Amino acid sequence: MIYFDNSATTRPCEEVIKAVNEAMTDDKWGNPGSLHKLGYLSLNAYLKAREECASVLNCSAEELFFTSCGTESANTAITGYVKANPRKGKTVISTKTEHKCTLETLELLRKEGYDIKYVSVGRDGKPDLDELSEMMRSGVSLMCFTHVNNETGAVLPVDSIVELRKECCPDAAIYLDCVQSLGKLPVDLKKTGVDMASFSGHKIHGIKGSGLLYVRTNTRILPLIIGGGQQDGMRSGTQSLPLASSMAAAMTAAEQERDSAVERVREINRFLREELKKRGAVINSPDDALPFVLNVAFRNFQSETMLHCLEMYDIYISTVSACASRSKKVSYVLENMGIDRKVSSNSVRLSFSRYNTMDEAVRFIEAVDEIYKLYEVNVR
Amino acid sequence: MIYFDNSATTRPCEEVIKAVNEAMTDDKWGNPGSLHKLGYLSLNAYLKAREECASVLNCSAEELFFTSCGTESANTAITGYVKANPRKGKTVISTKTEHKCTLETLELLRKEGYDIKYVSVGRDGKPDLDELSEMMRSGVSLMCFTHVNNETGAVLPVDSIVELRKECCPDAAIYLDCVQSLGKLPVDLKKTGVDMASFSGHKIHGIKGSGLLYVRTNTRILPLIIGGGQQDGMRSGTQSLPLASSMAAAMTAAEQERDSAVERVREINRFLREELKKRGAVINSPDDALPFVLNVAFRNFQSETMLHCLEMYDIYISTVSACASRSKKVSYVLENMGIDRKVSSNSVRLSFSRYNTMDEAVRFIEAVDEIYKLYEVNVR
Repeated sequence: MIYFDNSATTRPCEEVIKAVNEAMTDDKWGNPGSLHKLGYLSLNAYLKAREECASVLNCSAEELFFTSCGTESANTAITGYVKANPRKGKTVISTKTEHKCTLETLELLRKEGYDIKYVSVGRDGKPDLDELSEMMRSGVSLMCFTHVNNETGAVLPVDSIVELRKECCPDAAIYLDCVQSLGKLPVDLKKTGVDMASFSGHKIHGIKGSGLLYVRTNTRILPLIIGGGQQDGMRSGTQSLPLASSMAAAMTAAEQERDSAVERVREINRFLREELKKRGAVINSPDDALPFVLNVAFRNFQSETMLHCLEMYDIYISTVSACASRSKKVSYVLENMGIDRKVSSNSVRLSFSRYNTMDEAVRFIEAVDEIYKLYEVNVR
Repeated sequence: MIYFDNSATTRPCEEVIKAVNEAMTDDKWGNPGSLHKLGYLSLNAYLKAREECASVLNCSAEELFFTSCGTESANTAITGYVKANPRKGKTVISTKTEHKCTLETLELLRKEGYDIKYVSVGRDGKPDLDELSEMMRSGVSLMCFTHVNNETGAVLPVDSIVELRKECCPDAAIYLDCVQSLGKLPVDLKKTGVDMASFSGHKIHGIKGSGLLYVRTNTRILPLIIGGGQQDGMRSGTQSLPLASSMAAAMTAAEQERDSAVERVREINRFLREELKKRGAVINSPDDALPFVLNVAFRNFQSETMLHCLEMYDIYISTVSACASRSKKVSYVLENMGIDRKVSSNSVRLSFSRYNTMDEAVRFIEAVDEIYKLYEVNVR
């Protein structure tokens, strides 16, 4: 099997499986809220997991909150921020290439009377900084961006945006969706200067159902899920040690292997770009995209056709993002990058992880050649 | 170790550990949203888990949504219902003995202009039905109750309330918190007549982080977590097969062993009530409470003192509910049942599961005797 759909989800790694099992057995299964020894053993392990996450992200542990997924983190950050800071106004800036968990939240806010402004995105997947700075100058409460786009791998110029904010609207907050950058790009929260960030475990070989929300000290946000007041009231519900431990284990493993993974994946990506271009494919991912995502259009092949052809060879890729794939629509991300509809409708996403190899890349190309041959497509 | 704190959380059972591990490995770890084989294998297993839950609860699978915990389910049901049904008015009826995930949500709604009415609760932990029917007659959108109180085991007269609704306010919806009744009382959703219900996995030997929300067909509610539109748009975020499978495995195992568990736990409860009464303790749990919870006040022992004394004997109980236990307040549940503050401040909760034995109950009493002796308390 060749799995090139790691931006959709990943297979839990050994470290994660071990962490989840340890947290379900032994003396770690208590309720972290309980006053007795079993509670404290669980609470201590939970706080240790949080410390471990904080150390990977270079933030303080008190700035992190465990959630159930990247979507919950995004919902909480965006809605929680604007509702907690009404004096900052009702303007939110974002792009139309965000993940649906951001876009749906923003559209809901628009219905409630918020002014949602979308800055244009170029063919390189990056927001137009001139347009952005102009928007910033007319007043803004919150800006929502994605560190690495999940469909194209386009990398956000975070530093430039933080720099622009300093100049144009120092009081505005920045929320950064780091679901696809975690474990692949350095995420140094102290240095980055963003105020909130979201993370997901299952994109980096963690268990599905584990997420993380970063809220910078002194940034006020309202919780989305309320009740028993767990996690300093920021996220109620009994804390789950298996999920927190999974998150910590996944992050630590990804961080430890990041350098070698980036190098190997870069090589895979470079090889595939060259070979696919030779075969007439159009590379949609920007040249400077994160190598873990490669969006490519196969001439004369509808996205879904290529997906299923490759499936015959036990090769797994995706059309658009997994959550949108059943709707059979053309990617709104590619559309907003100005990519022709004809190209979009032929586009697929290959996405890699540290477990992929060059050998798999070679076999992928062989499969593509066989598919082309089978369909007698003139590739040149 | 004697663990009598099963209403706080439980140790994951073998069936659950197996289900979680299977869902993390083999060919089940795909994203249920993916179009390829790995996606479908995961989606099918996910739908099978949902079917399994539906069969235990006697509802249709389409009426169930996986969530991250009971708290999320409660938040979604309550807020989601009143916001989706503005024409039904702004009155919500509940009691002051609900779990914090209900009370906090209701207080938030009150701040938004909703009229929250709390019906009185008697010494038996049950809402005053005369008062309730009067409240119902003056118009109500939603009623929020708990099937089994987590601190006392008091059982709600669900049938009487559903009957009253038919008479007084047939258009009002009922949300039922079934976190403590699941696996312990029969929950037959078709028969019960409630419109929404919440469930949690970790109270019945499931993994922490798994919850379930029931929404009766044709009951409109707004989702709390939005984005990719998973689970029919009712709960976005990549579906987690490990957590869904855990929920199904925990529910099936609990259901299979329910009859024998109830019998054994009833015997344990009866024995403890008698022995503790002999020793001058005050039983706070109503006589007709669910036997899985026994709330009892030890004369001359502050709740926390008794908890820590018992801890010396490797016996684990709780003061109030786990999520409130660190706040060191006297139980608001007991307070609202009209129990004297002095008794409340001496109260602890013993809570049982199907894994507890009569032998443990005997050893518990022996430990209490030793503690009394050690502290030279005159118990008569």
